[in-house]
Amino acid sequence: MAPHSPLDLADDDPFGPHHLPYGVFSALAEPGGPGRPGGAGRRRIGVRYGDHVLDLGAAAEALGSPHAALLAGPTLNPLLAAGRPVWQAVRAQARAWLTGPEHRRAVAPLLRPLADAALHLPFEVADYVDFYASEHHATNVSTIFRPNAPALPPPWKHLPIGYHGRAGTVVVSGTPVVRPRGQYRGGAAGPVAGPTRRLDFEAEVGFVVGAPSSHGRPVPLTALRDHVFGVCLLNDWSARDVQAWESQPLGPFLGKSFATSVAAWVTPLDALDAARTAPPPRDTPPLPYLDDSAAEPGGLDLALEVAVNGHTVSRPPFSSMYWTAAQQLAHLTANGASLRTGDLFASGTVSGPRPEERGCLLELTWGGREPLRLPGGERTFLEDGDEVTLRATAPGPDGTRLSLGEVTGRVLPALPEGPGADGAA
Amino acid sequence: MAPHSPLDLADDDPFGPHHLPYGVFSALAEPGGPGRPGGAGRRRIGVRYGDHVLDLGAAAEALGSPHAALLAGPTLNPLLAAGRPVWQAVRAQARAWLTGPEHRRAVAPLLRPLADAALHLPFEVADYVDFYASEHHATNVSTIFRPNAPALPPPWKHLPIGYHGRAGTVVVSGTPVVRPRGQYRGGAAGPVAGPTRRLDFEAEVGFVVGAPSSHGRPVPLTALRDHVFGVCLLNDWSARDVQAWESQPLGPFLGKSFATSVAAWVTPLDALDAARTAPPPRDTPPLPYLDDSAAEPGGLDLALEVAVNGHTVSRPPFSSMYWTAAQQLAHLTANGASLRTGDLFASGTVSGPRPEERGCLLELTWGGREPLRLPGGERTFLEDGDEVTLRATAPGPDGTRLSLGEVTGRVLPALPEGPGADGAA
Repeated sequence: MAPHSPLDLADDDPFGPHHLPYGVFSALAEPGGPGRPGGAGRRRIGVRYGDHVLDLGAAAEALGSPHAALLAGPTLNPLLAAGRPVWQAVRAQARAWLTGPEHRRAVAPLLRPLADAALHLPFEVADYVDFYASEHHATNVSTIFRPNAPALPPPWKHLPIGYHGRAGTVVVSGTPVVRPRGQYRGGAAGPVAGPTRRLDFEAEVGFVVGAPSSHGRPVPLTALRDHVFGVCLLNDWSARDVQAWESQPLGPFLGKSFATSVAAWVTPLDALDAARTAPPPRDTPPLPYLDDSAAEPGGLDLALEVAVNGHTVSRPPFSSMYWTAAQQLAHLTANGASLRTGDLFASGTVSGPRPEERGCLLELTWGGREPLRLPGGERTFLEDGDEVTLRATAPGPDGTRLSLGEVTGRVLPALPEGPGADGAA
Repeated sequence: MAPHSPLDLADDDPFGPHHLPYGVFSALAEPGGPGRPGGAGRRRIGVRYGDHVLDLGAAAEALGSPHAALLAGPTLNPLLAAGRPVWQAVRAQARAWLTGPEHRRAVAPLLRPLADAALHLPFEVADYVDFYASEHHATNVSTIFRPNAPALPPPWKHLPIGYHGRAGTVVVSGTPVVRPRGQYRGGAAGPVAGPTRRLDFEAEVGFVVGAPSSHGRPVPLTALRDHVFGVCLLNDWSARDVQAWESQPLGPFLGKSFATSVAAWVTPLDALDAARTAPPPRDTPPLPYLDDSAAEPGGLDLALEVAVNGHTVSRPPFSSMYWTAAQQLAHLTANGASLRTGDLFASGTVSGPRPEERGCLLELTWGGREPLRLPGGERTFLEDGDEVTLRATAPGPDGTRLSLGEVTGRVLPALPEGPGADGAA
């Protein structure tokens, strides 16, 4: 039997030639587990193929791609900025290199086992916006946080509610998350400051903007594919006690800004054609700029899975989201706000209609009142040492399936107060 | 009488050697008015001196500064990142070059009249955060927007409330602002979409972060000067109808994200030593990480002025702000959120206790119910063609005064709907 080549994948490999997500890697100084952040050596753009990563910059150089200059740097941003025709050309080339027998000899040495690669934040984040697009999530949260208010905030069915988050604290999967300190309600003596007692995850899907838009010019929802390069899983870590105290009247701030984890792999939108699906029926007609009834189906049939310490706690269906990415993009730019390369917008927590489909602990434990039973003990919110992992699969072409790159992160204890704080960095 | 040199300023020039704000300029293809955006030629770092700008990169090169490499680029970011000792050294050098008789021959040719310069956004904005730190503003807005709620939101006296804004739409003074479209409350038939009917300004002061901080490490309020490079006036344009409809429960989004204007000149914190002043007495003791009672005075005695079409409509005193920039920085990072070079945080609307000190039209016209009388006609909110200008002065050393760089912007009519929207940029 011939020696196994990383170019020979099983037909059902979720990272096969139908997928080809992009990331940024470097050589691990000491080979270790897959996807560890850190690592030595130059950062390079890679394409995941099975359990290997193709050094795309080196391949483009070796095989004479006209787009080699876009692929030579340490982030995806130049490729993102190049626009859809180039995205399609580069994707077609990568597929040809990985599957064409005539390229095997040149390409095989440019594949590195993931176990020997450190994975980095794949793109420089420009602005980060987080939406709130699951009707089930919004209804649950309203009921838990504001039991006397209407089940949905008044504008909810008229526009995709969103807010800006902190771009500078978006981190790649595998980065540990230090339990944040913050201010929250105490007793009668007023608020207290300390490590959050209600650390949560939020299972979300992120959309990565490639081609920018002009300031002052709204982007119609039919132009999603001209601007959005791809998709990545995203964990919007949340400190619920901080968030509940601080959010009146200007929304979440420190309850969210300490860390947002994204997958190391960005799946091109073009790999998700078979996952397109109609969004759920809408009982409120959207205003014209949000009306997608004549557009291509705007939903995505992604099956998410959330695991805490290896134990699956939820299976949120992304197909249940009320607002689509195309509507979010149209809304985000309706006032003329421009898009920049590297803008990231996220769906908001993905929760399905059923209890076992809820995308965060706040909902899964109903505000901490109904603890979740895990093999290692009960959980209301996350404890130090807990590891949260988001995964998702989607239909690919011809009956295949693909797996989005996972997002994982472990909770580290809060740092001691005071002397641990630094002055200048 | 010897010919007048731009190096010879009147003793009371507000842009004299005690000030020396930084900006980015290029040569105007066709000389025009001062501070026009656009312009041809390479962008260069400059220091304002009277009505001229010193080409600082060229001066550093010609006069052999060890920091020339930081000053050669098209933005202030490399200088910002270099940290306080370098900021102090560069400032001392610039002052020596502009005031030392031995440098006159070398420096004079490097001064360009502002009328012949285009001014650009002086730094690349990383994350933008907007606070809400005036007790008078917050009380007025609460009373106008939420008449049945408490005068201040519950956390207001316990923490500086803030939220993230859109970094990608921060523009330099002089950039016209197109009236944004948006969604707002209609009649019984539900919300409508159209050009905002309640376009407003907000007079604010922005703080520009230079030296970054480590992720996970809070920055204490005593470390303000190690991280914050300087100050610029800022107009947080707001569409009040959009904001009022969209903000539940996640805060302002499209009502603010269409444009935020900043001055073309960043005044170093070191130029504002004489403006330091104690903040107003606090009736609620802050938690330890916000307690500035043992720190140097955290307020700034800046006298703001707002003009609409050249007519002064308000004189907000920045010394009346309840929360200081040092407290805002400590709060912003209390959860371990890191600072990046180019982060911008703004004070929130500056409103003093008196009606003629209110920093936005929402307050000045009490929600549009009490129109403002201007020479050209009444105003509730801004009309197309209106020009808003913010100015401020501050005490300098030895009885001098300085003027912060102004922020100005003219309102352009909304673009037509539909065909004006673009697909790919």
